[in-house]
Amino acid sequence: MRLTLFDQGRLGLVDGNDIVDVTEQLAGTGPYGPEGPLHRHIERLADGRTGPLDLTGAPHTPLAEATLEAPLPRPGKIIGAPVNYLDHKAEMEYTTSVADLGVFLKANSSVIGPGQDILLPYTDKRTDQEGELGVIIGRTASHVSRDDALDHVFGYTCVLDITVRSGEDRSTRKSFDTFTPIGPWIVTADEIPDPDTLDLRCDVAGTTRQRTNTADLIFGVRELIAYTSSVMTLHPGDVIATGTPAGVGPLSHGDRVVLEIERVGRLEVGVDGSGATAYAQRPGYHSR
Amino acid sequence: MRLTLFDQGRLGLVDGNDIVDVTEQLAGTGPYGPEGPLHRHIERLADGRTGPLDLTGAPHTPLAEATLEAPLPRPGKIIGAPVNYLDHKAEMEYTTSVADLGVFLKANSSVIGPGQDILLPYTDKRTDQEGELGVIIGRTASHVSRDDALDHVFGYTCVLDITVRSGEDRSTRKSFDTFTPIGPWIVTADEIPDPDTLDLRCDVAGTTRQRTNTADLIFGVRELIAYTSSVMTLHPGDVIATGTPAGVGPLSHGDRVVLEIERVGRLEVGVDGSGATAYAQRPGYHSR
Repeated sequence: MRLTLFDQGRLGLVDGNDIVDVTEQLAGTGPYGPEGPLHRHIERLADGRTGPLDLTGAPHTPLAEATLEAPLPRPGKIIGAPVNYLDHKAEMEYTTSVADLGVFLKANSSVIGPGQDILLPYTDKRTDQEGELGVIIGRTASHVSRDDALDHVFGYTCVLDITVRSGEDRSTRKSFDTFTPIGPWIVTADEIPDPDTLDLRCDVAGTTRQRTNTADLIFGVRELIAYTSSVMTLHPGDVIATGTPAGVGPLSHGDRVVLEIERVGRLEVGVDGSGATAYAQRPGYHSR
Repeated sequence: MRLTLFDQGRLGLVDGNDIVDVTEQLAGTGPYGPEGPLHRHIERLADGRTGPLDLTGAPHTPLAEATLEAPLPRPGKIIGAPVNYLDHKAEMEYTTSVADLGVFLKANSSVIGPGQDILLPYTDKRTDQEGELGVIIGRTASHVSRDDALDHVFGYTCVLDITVRSGEDRSTRKSFDTFTPIGPWIVTADEIPDPDTLDLRCDVAGTTRQRTNTADLIFGVRELIAYTSSVMTLHPGDVIATGTPAGVGPLSHGDRVVLEIERVGRLEVGVDGSGATAYAQRPGYHSR
């Protein structure tokens, strides 16, 4: 099942060339906040307050006529795994891995959806693309074992973990508005029995920069959930970006970035550098 | 106005020795999620969908008989400022400040309220207290100036930024469950015209470890909001922990931690080390 938001917050299932619009099924559950209807649906599924979506009689919209949006516009947490492919580890000259480096957090205000633009913040600092498999948590997970980890997954999506190459904490360098494109939908976990076998490709301006298979993850999806849930409780709707392979590189105004993951989907966004300013102009830099 | 949650998610105003229970005023606004009723109220105030709380005829409960809870059990973002007091900067041997180090993020799953226990994760790594003034955002803030910053504040609270001293990313070391005690309530901004003039004291096991005035912040509240909002949009209900002064130190099983901030309140929590395990036992550590 492919779940997406479209046309200003409507909830739909992508079915071939159509979207089945199930927004009205949520009407009785009260208003939701900026987290959006899919997030609320995942929470209610986890609590047993609702069952599977009923597609009987739901209206259809042609997929080609719909504007897809980020399926989770404001996730609870966005967790990232640094240096989690061997080739990227070599590229970044790191000698350690996730259990030593820990996971990092991205601001949940940094999400955009398909077709939107990544906004470059600085004229004189590199902003890189990092294409990654995203895991959406479906059931609360605390201290879960590797073997039980996939029971806590709702589904998968494409995530671009956009990153400025400068000296600040990762949370700052990765949390600018627009720095977490996700989508175009969430594929539910039943369609992907083993997430550690998926081809992934990321193209920038028509050139393939990253090509891998999630089999090359140092910490696979199961290990990442086990490790992360030993630190912090994972809640329904949380997103884990599993890490990026070699091939990160700078984005330029006008670039198109395409991330395609086998069985998950194809996410395309633009790049807009028209509002970038000099790094030395950031607030507080001169006030020390 | 002092706003708090109490007795399993009820919303109240602390008025002398009483709590005025305004929970029923939110009944018409539909169910809220794990973010809780105060978060939803702050969002609705920001959107103009609701006005000030009406205290007429609201029932009173004696404060002494109520169990206070974290006013925001799951904030949108929890943002921290590293090394933001000159004395702590010297103590940690850092040579740079917020505009160089950036801000960091803590998991919103790490919040506990007054009277709860900080759980120590490791038997053989230090877990330190860091007492801080917390700022609650009331209006969406993006690229706001220092002069306009306080217009975006809903109120203030006490925040303990609990931190393991180990090698992982700050987001990991500061995001264990129970690592962000907040409360006992939020004091609305109208009661604190200038947040950069407040005495702060943090005691552990009956000994004062930290004593400062927020006048000694390197980046004051205005500067922190200006800087942070230049990176990421701040939303109603987001929390900024403004940084800690000198005097951080290890917590032990059975300690009581008390953070008292002038005009804001007094937050007390316990420390429980009974579930701590050896650092080398964390998932994934042996699998490299």
